[in-house]
Amino acid sequence: MCMMGQRNSAILLINCPDARGLVATVSGFLFRHGANILSTDEHRDDASGQFFMRIEWDLEGFDLAEDAFKELFDAETAQKYGMNWRVEYSLRPHRVAVFVSRYLHCFADLLHRHKTGELAGEIPLVISNHDDAARHAAFYGIPYHHIAVNAQNKEEAEARQLALLEEHGVDLVVLARYMQVLSPAFVTRYPGRIINVHHSFLPAFSGAKPYHAAFERGVKLIGATAHYVTEILDDGPIIEQEVIRVSHRDQLDDLVEKGRDAERLVLSRAVRWHLEHRVLLYGNKTVVFA
Amino acid sequence: MCMMGQRNSAILLINCPDARGLVATVSGFLFRHGANILSTDEHRDDASGQFFMRIEWDLEGFDLAEDAFKELFDAETAQKYGMNWRVEYSLRPHRVAVFVSRYLHCFADLLHRHKTGELAGEIPLVISNHDDAARHAAFYGIPYHHIAVNAQNKEEAEARQLALLEEHGVDLVVLARYMQVLSPAFVTRYPGRIINVHHSFLPAFSGAKPYHAAFERGVKLIGATAHYVTEILDDGPIIEQEVIRVSHRDQLDDLVEKGRDAERLVLSRAVRWHLEHRVLLYGNKTVVFA
Amino acid sequence: MCMMGQRNSAILLINCPDARGLVATVSGFLFRHGANILSTDEHRDDASGQFFMRIEWDLEGFDLAEDAFKELFDAETAQKYGMNWRVEYSLRPHRVAVFVSRYLHCFADLLHRHKTGELAGEIPLVISNHDDAARHAAFYGIPYHHIAVNAQNKEEAEARQLALLEEHGVDLVVLARYMQVLSPAFVTRYPGRIINVHHSFLPAFSGAKPYHAAFERGVKLIGATAHYVTEILDDGPIIEQEVIRVSHRDQLDDLVEKGRDAERLVLSRAVRWHLEHRVLLYGNKTVVFA
Amino acid sequence: MCMMGQRNSAILLINCPDARGLVATVSGFLFRHGANILSTDEHRDDASGQFFMRIEWDLEGFDLAEDAFKELFDAETAQKYGMNWRVEYSLRPHRVAVFVSRYLHCFADLLHRHKTGELAGEIPLVISNHDDAARHAAFYGIPYHHIAVNAQNKEEAEARQLALLEEHGVDLVVLARYMQVLSPAFVTRYPGRIINVHHSFLPAFSGAKPYHAAFERGVKLIGATAHYVTEILDDGPIIEQEVIRVSHRDQLDDLVEKGRDAERLVLSRAVRWHLEHRVLLYGNKTVVFA
Repeated sequence: MCMMGQRNSAILLINCPDARGLVATVSGFLFRHGANILSTDEHRDDASGQFFMRIEWDLEGFDLAEDAFKELFDAETAQKYGMNWRVEYSLRPHRVAVFVSRYLHCFADLLHRHKTGELAGEIPLVISNHDDAARHAAFYGIPYHHIAVNAQNKEEAEARQLALLEEHGVDLVVLARYMQVLSPAFVTRYPGRIINVHHSFLPAFSGAKPYHAAFERGVKLIGATAHYVTEILDDGPIIEQEVIRVSHRDQLDDLVEKGRDAERLVLSRAVRWHLEHRVLLYGNKTVVFA
Repeated sequence: MCMMGQRNSAILLINCPDARGLVATVSGFLFRHGANILSTDEHRDDASGQFFMRIEWDLEGFDLAEDAFKELFDAETAQKYGMNWRVEYSLRPHRVAVFVSRYLHCFADLLHRHKTGELAGEIPLVISNHDDAARHAAFYGIPYHHIAVNAQNKEEAEARQLALLEEHGVDLVVLARYMQVLSPAFVTRYPGRIINVHHSFLPAFSGAKPYHAAFERGVKLIGATAHYVTEILDDGPIIEQEVIRVSHRDQLDDLVEKGRDAERLVLSRAVRWHLEHRVLLYGNKTVVFA
Repeated sequence: MCMMGQRNSAILLINCPDARGLVATVSGFLFRHGANILSTDEHRDDASGQFFMRIEWDLEGFDLAEDAFKELFDAETAQKYGMNWRVEYSLRPHRVAVFVSRYLHCFADLLHRHKTGELAGEIPLVISNHDDAARHAAFYGIPYHHIAVNAQNKEEAEARQLALLEEHGVDLVVLARYMQVLSPAFVTRYPGRIINVHHSFLPAFSGAKPYHAAFERGVKLIGATAHYVTEILDDGPIIEQEVIRVSHRDQLDDLVEKGRDAERLVLSRAVRWHLEHRVLLYGNKTVVFA
Repeated sequence: MCMMGQRNSAILLINCPDARGLVATVSGFLFRHGANILSTDEHRDDASGQFFMRIEWDLEGFDLAEDAFKELFDAETAQKYGMNWRVEYSLRPHRVAVFVSRYLHCFADLLHRHKTGELAGEIPLVISNHDDAARHAAFYGIPYHHIAVNAQNKEEAEARQLALLEEHGVDLVVLARYMQVLSPAFVTRYPGRIINVHHSFLPAFSGAKPYHAAFERGVKLIGATAHYVTEILDDGPIIEQEVIRVSHRDQLDDLVEKGRDAERLVLSRAVRWHLEHRVLLYGNKTVVFA
């Protein structure tokens, strides 16, 4: 589980109906081409009959360049089992756009982790509907784009955002307490590639003001959830959840403050796992090979 | 926080609108009558402006017998501040009826804890709509009452249950995975004195089959909630919650099994705190002086 | 991760120096013989260069009986890579002897879990140096052997214990708060097959009276550790650890009581994982494919 | 538990041998002088027979100015019970010097929390034996003092540090992964006023390289401890501890990275509680009224 950026490896991610010989076939293919396996993870989901695999190997000594690998693996293996699959290369880190509004705790935490090398990706830009995060972005040397969003200009604002994502070759959008709901049209452009942090233990307290709702309900634990964004609000596949104990002594403000710790933890873990290609999607769930 | 049963103490529980001099007045009253305070807990709820207090004192040297205390405290103190209050005596432990159906893990756990002295109450009877728990109850020497419940006889069955509770002077009803919904008429008879364990992190997954719902939603933590029963299903004041981490590897059966650990923990803590008179109710919330 | 006992499967456990082609070779071998893989887990330990694998397959359609499999796998695969390996069969559950003294919480918990099918093993006998657990054992229908142990008779007592283990074909010894230190001679007879629960977060507070030591030190979390027993007290490979929050409010007795919950959790998990053949040993550590 | 800085309150902290009438006497004193109590916390430690109290009141309507209060409270109350006591004023926040070396995660976290108002104190200066943290300090507008420390100049370096602390009227020193051991002479100057974060679950793995030691031991949880610094290394009173789950998959680097999250949490909580005057010391332990 050590840092991806420190090596020259490939990561193959597979999802298909379970079948006999899957592991033998995939690992046999890689072995024949000289792969030195660094890690292998499999999962068989009994309920759905689906098979999931993540396999990472050192490219030193591997005899297939990217195109040749893709062509050959598809022809010899993937088609046979009806695989959804993709291959990632550690030397080609994913590019992340961070969206943020006025609450900066997740944002500051992500930038610090990125700086210290915890996150195996690049952050070419920050997009915000406010100015609050600009100084932070500048401190970390990341270009900052202020795009105001309101009921009137939402479509146009999203068009500008999408143009920036396109221009910067963004692979992943991270909503670090971005307080605008993205339109279905936007979400559709980045399926399984937008991560949001919701400040509750979903599915409890979906929607706005979850800490208020938690306070009213008198819960003894508050939570946070990192999930992929889908067209249905707060309903996307969950990547990570965490809770923090509270008591009658905690007023609403305390819930908000304690909750921030849970938010930081779940969002940073989810982004890290995504960037290390450890998360596979199926239906509305995730397999996380962490 | 040591065992109540091992001492001869009184516990005064107070709830009233916050006002100046409350602690001084109550503690002054007790001091003048020779109370040796063992523990004091207060809470002021900013949102509601309510004040809560639990104070326990050694009765050795205290100069007021029960009736005299009640009369005098009411006249001198409680009326002045508009207090809801009650006093409990450690030598008069509360009497608990445990209701159980076919899942015995919480039931077996409670009986074992009771046997080892963790719970400061007496268990004069067990009531079940099945036979499964009978051997366990017999092992611990607790009378077992089998009262079948179905759609047709529910009213009559509850009448028999209530008669038994009356007969045995029951103070607290514990639903240890009792799989019948109590009627509003029953619940009304024991306000704030029926504790249920729900096998989810409420308010997520209220209602039937919460583990199925959690599995479908792909959560990364499963939970359990101990709460007082009110007329609205799964909506009563929460006493305790706990979660346990799960992953994609956990199938539905695994959620059920792991969840049992959370259920045991929350129910046993809630019952313990209630029996030590550490839980105060206000609105739909609890103050737990644990 | 569903219950082993419900299927007819084989589990192959492998540990060897990492080498190219390991997964391909093992999975290829099984595939050629018609194995329907149920789950596969691998781990490569960077620090030691060791490889670990657990692979479970449905025996339906597998064309090798036990002896043939062992012979062939050894000849074709295991020798080549210098493997430590063994194969287990789900229909041949391991046999567990539970040792207990006077604290019964772990013992009662294990027996209840066994009864409900959480533990994939058989418990043919209980051995104790006291009488306290006899009624519990009888309740669950498990033969109880009282063997008093003191400074004078220890050697003889252990000889009687070992004879019983031999007689009942015991695979695993579980020390469920058994308050006698086993001699090195005893331990040597069951390497990696004696599980103990220590009532602290090892390596903090090894030795006797860990709760006293934790109380003196003023820790804010207390823990419990399930580990394999080696000749050095409290030093064996750790299988599982858990902690529970405490505060200044908790007196020594409270630590003891709260700690029991952590003890139950770690011991039951460790026994469960061992019986499902999910734990591999290397040096003084464990790989747990849970 | 809401933010202290937002109100004009006094906090009285008391520690003395337990005696009858303590709460009545203290609360009576405050009541007579018009105090509007905001929160009260007491603790009686059975083992030591000590009593602890924290009481906070709104100064609006309180009829004693600081000097008058101190004189009168001492004469009328404190002397009688042999109290250790002090009073703090929310409008006079404590002044914090943060010491840091090259690992910046705790440092960056503290500064961000300070900026967002989570910490009820002022940070007039940062002291470091390296340059790494200088940009961060500048970003938050906090003066940075680089004082190199080595075996030869340690005494002189500490003299310069102490002069700075004196000059800036520092109340609390926070060692945010400061990698130099302070001399006993230094520690003696700030008894109970130096908070350190140790990157293990003390008392396990005290001393240098705790993550290495934890990795070698094969623990399943790693921890962090925030504690007051005493003359004995890693032995001071514990304020807060936290753990994070690890597995065989985690290599040494992973322990280090995961551990940072625990370090951030315990240090920020400890500093917060200290600055809100929620921590009382007795012997080698803490009472934390959090």
